[in-house]
Amino acid sequence: MSARYVHGYEATEAIRLQDQAQTLEHLLHADTVYPVGDTVLEAGCGVGAQTLPLARNSPGAHVTAVDVSATSLAEAERRVREAGHGHVTFRQADILALPFAPASFDHVFACFVLEHLPRPREALAALGRVLKPGGTITVIEGDHGSALIHPRSDAAEAAIGAQVALQRMAGGDALVGRQLFPLLGAAGFVGVQVSPRLVYVDASRPALVDGFIRRTFTAMIAGVRAQAIRAGIIEAEVFDAGIRALLRTAEADGVFCYTFFKATARRAA
Amino acid sequence: MSARYVHGYEATEAIRLQDQAQTLEHLLHADTVYPVGDTVLEAGCGVGAQTLPLARNSPGAHVTAVDVSATSLAEAERRVREAGHGHVTFRQADILALPFAPASFDHVFACFVLEHLPRPREALAALGRVLKPGGTITVIEGDHGSALIHPRSDAAEAAIGAQVALQRMAGGDALVGRQLFPLLGAAGFVGVQVSPRLVYVDASRPALVDGFIRRTFTAMIAGVRAQAIRAGIIEAEVFDAGIRALLRTAEADGVFCYTFFKATARRAA
Repeated sequence: MSARYVHGYEATEAIRLQDQAQTLEHLLHADTVYPVGDTVLEAGCGVGAQTLPLARNSPGAHVTAVDVSATSLAEAERRVREAGHGHVTFRQADILALPFAPASFDHVFACFVLEHLPRPREALAALGRVLKPGGTITVIEGDHGSALIHPRSDAAEAAIGAQVALQRMAGGDALVGRQLFPLLGAAGFVGVQVSPRLVYVDASRPALVDGFIRRTFTAMIAGVRAQAIRAGIIEAEVFDAGIRALLRTAEADGVFCYTFFKATARRAA
Repeated sequence: MSARYVHGYEATEAIRLQDQAQTLEHLLHADTVYPVGDTVLEAGCGVGAQTLPLARNSPGAHVTAVDVSATSLAEAERRVREAGHGHVTFRQADILALPFAPASFDHVFACFVLEHLPRPREALAALGRVLKPGGTITVIEGDHGSALIHPRSDAAEAAIGAQVALQRMAGGDALVGRQLFPLLGAAGFVGVQVSPRLVYVDASRPALVDGFIRRTFTAMIAGVRAQAIRAGIIEAEVFDAGIRALLRTAEADGVFCYTFFKATARRAA
C-alpha cells in the first residue's frame, strides 16, 4: 500500500504540500493505492462516495464493496458502473456477519463507517477475521470535536453538538476519529499508525471555501435541522444562528478547520 | 525563506513525513531558514526559547531579538551565548514603540507572542513598518481550542478553559492561532499563507508522549493552578481532575492532538 511513499524529504516540504491539497478526496485518498491483483474489501460502501476514488486509485485491484442497505448498494453499483470501473463487485452484507471465509482479503478499507456503528471494536474485529494474516486495514473517520472556526460562535457549537447528540442517539459516535488508535489496538490489529489530515480553509483557498465549508460541513449539519429540533435537542433559532455562523466562516476574514483521522494497521502474520 | 521548498512531490508523501516529526521544534521551525546576510527581527524573544532554533537554522543571518522585559532578555542572551551563537543581538524594546527606522529588516519572526498582546493587529502593523518593502513576516501561535483528547474529560476542558480565561484577563488570547489569516490581512500584509501544524500523540510516538503531553501542554496548564483558583475561575478539585485527565492521555490507549498555526506574509513591495 505504501509503495508510492518516498523516504528522505524534509518533513516541512511535505507540510507545504499538504497545505496545497485542494480537495478533500486527495487529502484522504491519495496515499491509498493497492497493488495490482490484490483483493480489497470495502466495508460499508454506502452509496459509493468513497468507492469511486478507491476504484480510481487502485485500477488493478479487485474490490468487493459491501453495505447493509440494498438500496444504497444499488446506487453505489450504478455510480461505479457509470464511471466505467469493472473491477468492483457489490454484495449486501452486515459487517458483523460477513459472508466471507476467514482470511479472504489482502486489504480492508472503511471510510466514514465506524461513526455509525454502536460497536466499532467488534466491527473492526470482524473485519480482521476476513483479512489474511499480515493483511492491512485502512480506516478514515472525522471527529466533530475538531471543528475550529473564526469568528467563534456558541450557536455554531450548539448546532454541531446537535449533530453529535443525534448520532449518539442513533448508536453512533461523531467523535470517533480520535479513537482510531485505541480501537484498532483493542480489536487485535498490530502496527497501528494514525495520520491526522487537517483541512484548513480561509479565503486564500477558494475551492475549499465552497467545497468544504459550504457544501460539505455546513450542508451536513444543516441536514439534521428537522430531526434535531423534533428531538428537542436544540431550538430552531439557535440552530439557524449556528448555520449562519458556520457560513460566516466562508467570508473573506473567516477561518474553518476540521481534522480527519486516517489509520492503517495489519492483522498479525 | 522558502529556498528549501521543493515542488512536485505527492502531498501524501509529505503528510507521512509530517507524521514523522518527532519534536515540536522541528514541526514549527524547520522550514524557517533565512538567507546568509539577511537581517531578521525576532519580536518578543522572551527567555530565548525560540531564539535558539531560529539562530541554529539561520547561521548566516543577522538576528536582532527584542523583548519588553530586561530580565527575560538577559536570560535569552545568556542562553544564546552559551549555545555559541554570535550572530544574535539583543535589545530591550516594546513592539508598539520599536527603536528602529522604518524598513530596517528583511524579515520579522514572532513565535508565541501575539497570544500575550491586547492589540495583536496594532503590534503586527508596527512590525510591518520596520520591515523592508517585500520583506517577510513569520508568525507562529497555538490555539487552545484545538486540544482534542481521548479519553474525553469535562474536567480537562475546564482546566484548559481556566488557562484561556486567565490569559484573557491578562489582555491576551489563547485562541489566537486560528485568527492569523485575518489579523495579518487587517495589519496590511499581503500574500498571507497559513500552514497549520497538528501535533498528534499516541503511544506509538513515545518521544511526544513525554515531550508534548507531559512536559509541554500539561505542564503549561498545571502552571496556572494557583492563579486560576485564586481568581475564582475554577474549583481546585475540578482543576486537579483536569490535570489527571490530561496525563491520562499519555497512557497506552490515550490520544492527544493540538494544532499550531504558522503564517507567513509579506510587506507590500
